[in-house]
Amino acid sequence: MATVVVLGSGIMATALVTPLFDNGHQVRLVGTHLDRDIIDSIQATGVHPTLGLEVPKGTTAFQLEDAAEAFEGVEFVVSGVNSFGVHWAGKQLAELLRPGMHVIALAKGMEADDEGNLAILPHVLADEIPDELRNKLTFSAIAGPSIAGEVAVRRHTSVVLTGDDAEVLEMWNKMFATDFYHVWNNTDLIGVEVCAATKNCYAFGAGLMAGILDAMGDEAGDRYFNYNYGAAIFGQASIEMIEFMELLGGHPTTPLGLPGIGDCFVTSMGGRNVKCGRLVGTGLSFSEARDQMPGVTLEGAAAIKVIGGAMVRLTERGIVDQKRFPLLRHLYEVVGQDQPVNMPWASFFGTNGSGQVA
Amino acid sequence: MATVVVLGSGIMATALVTPLFDNGHQVRLVGTHLDRDIIDSIQATGVHPTLGLEVPKGTTAFQLEDAAEAFEGVEFVVSGVNSFGVHWAGKQLAELLRPGMHVIALAKGMEADDEGNLAILPHVLADEIPDELRNKLTFSAIAGPSIAGEVAVRRHTSVVLTGDDAEVLEMWNKMFATDFYHVWNNTDLIGVEVCAATKNCYAFGAGLMAGILDAMGDEAGDRYFNYNYGAAIFGQASIEMIEFMELLGGHPTTPLGLPGIGDCFVTSMGGRNVKCGRLVGTGLSFSEARDQMPGVTLEGAAAIKVIGGAMVRLTERGIVDQKRFPLLRHLYEVVGQDQPVNMPWASFFGTNGSGQVA
Repeated sequence: MATVVVLGSGIMATALVTPLFDNGHQVRLVGTHLDRDIIDSIQATGVHPTLGLEVPKGTTAFQLEDAAEAFEGVEFVVSGVNSFGVHWAGKQLAELLRPGMHVIALAKGMEADDEGNLAILPHVLADEIPDELRNKLTFSAIAGPSIAGEVAVRRHTSVVLTGDDAEVLEMWNKMFATDFYHVWNNTDLIGVEVCAATKNCYAFGAGLMAGILDAMGDEAGDRYFNYNYGAAIFGQASIEMIEFMELLGGHPTTPLGLPGIGDCFVTSMGGRNVKCGRLVGTGLSFSEARDQMPGVTLEGAAAIKVIGGAMVRLTERGIVDQKRFPLLRHLYEVVGQDQPVNMPWASFFGTNGSGQVA
Repeated sequence: MATVVVLGSGIMATALVTPLFDNGHQVRLVGTHLDRDIIDSIQATGVHPTLGLEVPKGTTAFQLEDAAEAFEGVEFVVSGVNSFGVHWAGKQLAELLRPGMHVIALAKGMEADDEGNLAILPHVLADEIPDELRNKLTFSAIAGPSIAGEVAVRRHTSVVLTGDDAEVLEMWNKMFATDFYHVWNNTDLIGVEVCAATKNCYAFGAGLMAGILDAMGDEAGDRYFNYNYGAAIFGQASIEMIEFMELLGGHPTTPLGLPGIGDCFVTSMGGRNVKCGRLVGTGLSFSEARDQMPGVTLEGAAAIKVIGGAMVRLTERGIVDQKRFPLLRHLYEVVGQDQPVNMPWASFFGTNGSGQVA
């Protein structure tokens, strides 16, 4: 049995302690500078305050200043910091990692340069680490449909591990897989991570269906949920995720099953991002909706800004046809440019309802 | 502007009067022998009792014995009878249709012969009509994510028309398409109809996630919805719908967008079929759950019995590998053979979480 150190003690990072614990591993949970109260709570009572659950017995919690102690003698590292902290996490890991260590990352999103070239977050994370050390480490990632709280209480969950090295993935697989946490390996790192990032964009769109009803008030009636609208958004998302594979180099079937469509389903069912989309659906501009959710991190909206902005640049450069990714482009108009929602239905679904173009 | 006759006055058939009316067409709604009260109500008050709405002005309602009158001078026919009545509808139409008429059908499902060979319902319908007449008619179908009530009250809805003849589809498209009812044409009739039938099977599986929570009672907590479970089922459904294209001759991308994944989303969100799945999720056998829903038609469960039964036969004949379609096979064990739910997670998602096999 191994010892695993987790950098970041948010709800997803902490939820993953459960399958590791069930497999007999020891876990050391290291809070970031933003997690001080979480670590205090776990140290005092064993309870993660946001997750609202006791962490599995034997989990040791460390404040950031004790990170070096936590990383001592450890071979396996979970980078549990979210997309906003990836550079920060990389810089911390550059100080804390030693040759031979294995890193698996949770953050979902992409970054773009001024030319619109997109990079997946496991690459962004690794790039913060000096070449000489980085070449003696492995980097993997976890993706797929997972609500953290459900993982923590052992509800059936099916996920994908991704990375370049199949043997490393199999090693992580053995560490994580339990009777409730079902794990597949997929070496299409680009494809899986692009799905994980873009599904956050499309889930924002899923929030709109409820917001439009909210705005209708009593007129909406109580029997209809605008599911036809949501299903169309979801369907167009499935088409665009597959188009992203061609654009960024993933395998064309990677969005099927868990990494794309499955994860887009779970992400569309709720959470902060969908809530913000719902506010926008009522007729607020994105900025107005954002102001109603102070202090809340919105990874989906951030992903729309990054990926949608890159899409504009890639189109200017002639790399992407203006007619492709119409849903992502409209979400960018709404979230990145504060424009009202006016879904461009006619531009969706290709020529035949399934995205094919004659 | 045309006159359209609709055979069957269930909620979906009646909902489609709205876009036809908005485009200026006259509609004649003909009830089946089961729709007597509906037609009485519309004739007396204009209200469709199950839909709970007034039908658009100018819609004329006919009892079945007046069908010949309703079909007089009409070129366009909607066959709005559900999957249980397809043979009946075909036999009626054999008497009522005349050369040159165009038929568009709504029923979703498949039929199988003793060898497990599956037929889509537009073909079953057409086969009831003598060759000489049939060859002078056209047959099309409507598919895609549509909750009837939402169509009736003009919520944005995106659907697919399918059939062999692109010109005929374009003619129907012009008749149906409005600012809220968005319509695409797809000549992959087999692919679209197989999606429409199989999504009903998989939506039954979506009901299980809530039923499992119901059975847990207070222990389930109020924050977790078993969405990880549902997302995994949905993801495996996306893989199997694409496998069905290969098996039955649809185009491999047809399940994307509206016909498969979009429709599976909306169908998984609720309805009688999901409710029955939810009862089974609590631990009831299918027969016990069925008994709690007397008189309710369950097209999804019926589709599982037909398609799952055919799958057993096709496997015996060596046409389908035993390892494929594990979700459909398990749904057949549950619905067709009254076995308890025991989701075979390890058989899902191929070798890599996206359905690929090495």
